[in-house]
Amino acid sequence: MFKAPLSYLPGPTAVPDSILKARTGPVLDEQALYKEVTEAIQLILNTKSSVHVLAGEGMLALDSVSCSLIEPGDNVLIISNGVFGDWFLDLVSKYTKSHTIFQCDPTCGVSAQALEEFIVAQKQQGIFFKLATLVHCDTPSGVLNDIAALVPVLSRHSILSVVDMVASSFGVPINIDSCGIDVALMGSQKALSCPSGLSMLAISDKAWNTMQSRRTPIPSYYCNLLLFRNAPTTFPYTISSHDLLGLREALHLLMEEGLEHVYRRHVRVAEAVRYAVHKSGLTLYLSGDYSPTITAFHVPQGTTSEAILQTMLAEYGIRFSGSLGSLDKKVMRIGHMGFNSNVQVTLYVLKCLTRTLKSHGVCLKGDLGEHFFERYYSS
Amino acid sequence: MFKAPLSYLPGPTAVPDSILKARTGPVLDEQALYKEVTEAIQLILNTKSSVHVLAGEGMLALDSVSCSLIEPGDNVLIISNGVFGDWFLDLVSKYTKSHTIFQCDPTCGVSAQALEEFIVAQKQQGIFFKLATLVHCDTPSGVLNDIAALVPVLSRHSILSVVDMVASSFGVPINIDSCGIDVALMGSQKALSCPSGLSMLAISDKAWNTMQSRRTPIPSYYCNLLLFRNAPTTFPYTISSHDLLGLREALHLLMEEGLEHVYRRHVRVAEAVRYAVHKSGLTLYLSGDYSPTITAFHVPQGTTSEAILQTMLAEYGIRFSGSLGSLDKKVMRIGHMGFNSNVQVTLYVLKCLTRTLKSHGVCLKGDLGEHFFERYYSS
Repeated sequence: MFKAPLSYLPGPTAVPDSILKARTGPVLDEQALYKEVTEAIQLILNTKSSVHVLAGEGMLALDSVSCSLIEPGDNVLIISNGVFGDWFLDLVSKYTKSHTIFQCDPTCGVSAQALEEFIVAQKQQGIFFKLATLVHCDTPSGVLNDIAALVPVLSRHSILSVVDMVASSFGVPINIDSCGIDVALMGSQKALSCPSGLSMLAISDKAWNTMQSRRTPIPSYYCNLLLFRNAPTTFPYTISSHDLLGLREALHLLMEEGLEHVYRRHVRVAEAVRYAVHKSGLTLYLSGDYSPTITAFHVPQGTTSEAILQTMLAEYGIRFSGSLGSLDKKVMRIGHMGFNSNVQVTLYVLKCLTRTLKSHGVCLKGDLGEHFFERYYSS
Repeated sequence: MFKAPLSYLPGPTAVPDSILKARTGPVLDEQALYKEVTEAIQLILNTKSSVHVLAGEGMLALDSVSCSLIEPGDNVLIISNGVFGDWFLDLVSKYTKSHTIFQCDPTCGVSAQALEEFIVAQKQQGIFFKLATLVHCDTPSGVLNDIAALVPVLSRHSILSVVDMVASSFGVPINIDSCGIDVALMGSQKALSCPSGLSMLAISDKAWNTMQSRRTPIPSYYCNLLLFRNAPTTFPYTISSHDLLGLREALHLLMEEGLEHVYRRHVRVAEAVRYAVHKSGLTLYLSGDYSPTITAFHVPQGTTSEAILQTMLAEYGIRFSGSLGSLDKKVMRIGHMGFNSNVQVTLYVLKCLTRTLKSHGVCLKGDLGEHFFERYYSS
């Protein structure tokens, strides 16, 4: 029997059959479908903010919010403790030259106290920020920032918060409104386990008002979020209804399982994976603040990221993942998110990883899969 | 048996089951898949230009090319004989304030001679255009411009040509290279009969060089075409591989049927539809230059666009289409493109339209479906 490769990446993940099948279904009423999907996301993420679904990959959400909110001359704070945190600079700098990076230790979460002190110090120098960008889970390292502590710091200083939660949402409990997040950014191919191609945003009234009271026009059509203000009554382009059917099924699967169970499953798998990585003698990249969706570890001495990826695919049919940016070739990632966050598939992947590493001369203490399995069932 | 509505629109069309099924298939190698799809498009559209597939609806292609090619101060010519032609002004004006509309009769194709005279007259006033936008088939009216005559006029005057062929490509024969088109824009949900969500571009070396020799940076991330220059080796974001599987199947269906047959089928259905519209006493919107993909007719006196749409959906389960912009509420459209360009489904739709119009008090000479059927089989 032919077997397709298993996508065990920190996105795109393996897609459940029922989601793929849902995408073949008939489209009865796009407006009702859009409404149903966005209301489900509001419910899951605990928000009264309006939710919108754009036709485009997660990067579209990041670029659209930068384009729609930022005007030339606006002061933007980029809070970064990782590759994706840094990448916001690329987006922001397309729309304003006034930006400041608050660069933090990439091996753990951003400190709320340090952020507060930084903002106060900037104020003393006469620098006031209109908005700040923050990554909830920085995908290349899997660090999880404590948005419940960090976003209120921004709110206290009247700074609009833009939070990239592409790699955390739907795998980690999030309460957008109690955190006070102004714009939350999501993608379809991470913990939702849909195919790539949709990005979702939750946008607060304050953020909408900021867009609507701009002095200058939004310099794009496709990235202009204001064109979605009246959705689902009107859309700025033809909506990907078949993709929305898949998204609806993914949200339905979450609700059916129960959100508490979904989140516990992610935590339990992640904890056992970290235990296995550590127990086997590999080195976790982070010192703490681990996301339940991704585990990053240093490429062991004596082998390479490429060699591991190649063997995992060729010998075991697993698409495995290195990292990006400054972590490229230095760090490997176990993407236990969404559909892949389960004991069965993770056991298999870790056993294959063990054989792969051993075949490349890495000396491990025991078997990653066995450590994982034992820990999972004793936790 | 429950029956979903039939999408008989000028996009999104009904999607063949095999395309929906293909989208559930395993993704083996994104790079190979992307290469296969883009090479098939090159073959079908007769071009050596590089072809790229973006994750986003057709409007993304239009906005991306405007954003990537146009710099502040660039002189742009907008050639328009329709609603979508005019809409290019919205896109272009985001990137330069120097633009000129060459406004033509909306009820027939743009004249190559008139275009030549206009460009010469502009030159005499010291106005030289860097690029021009042109719509091959203007979707709201279905007018088909003669790109084989018009684009060479632009080339002779060293004006880069950007042609929106979203509503014509894959239903009408196109030879990009013999026309000399610099950038051709396409979408997935028109004559390809895929779900919405992908846009495709064919970009000439001259257009790439223009982008690469800009004085100012491209003011967007998601709309920056240069980030696709090295695809499929690298992509600027996660590619919608499942959507590409559907696109591959759609292209396969075209090749399997044979392009000549596909184009003949479109012409034959369109000609018989126009005959039926005219014969029944309805008034075609255009005086000539009809696209084989869409037929537009005036809303008959005594009824409304909304009433027709509502009855078509409620009584017969057909999503039918009015028009857009200045033609909204004035014009109805029969979207015989892609999968819907066949005698069986079109006969059914026209018979339902006949009953609908009669139920709203419109006096018709005979039955649209019967006229269509007779003409189709006597042609």
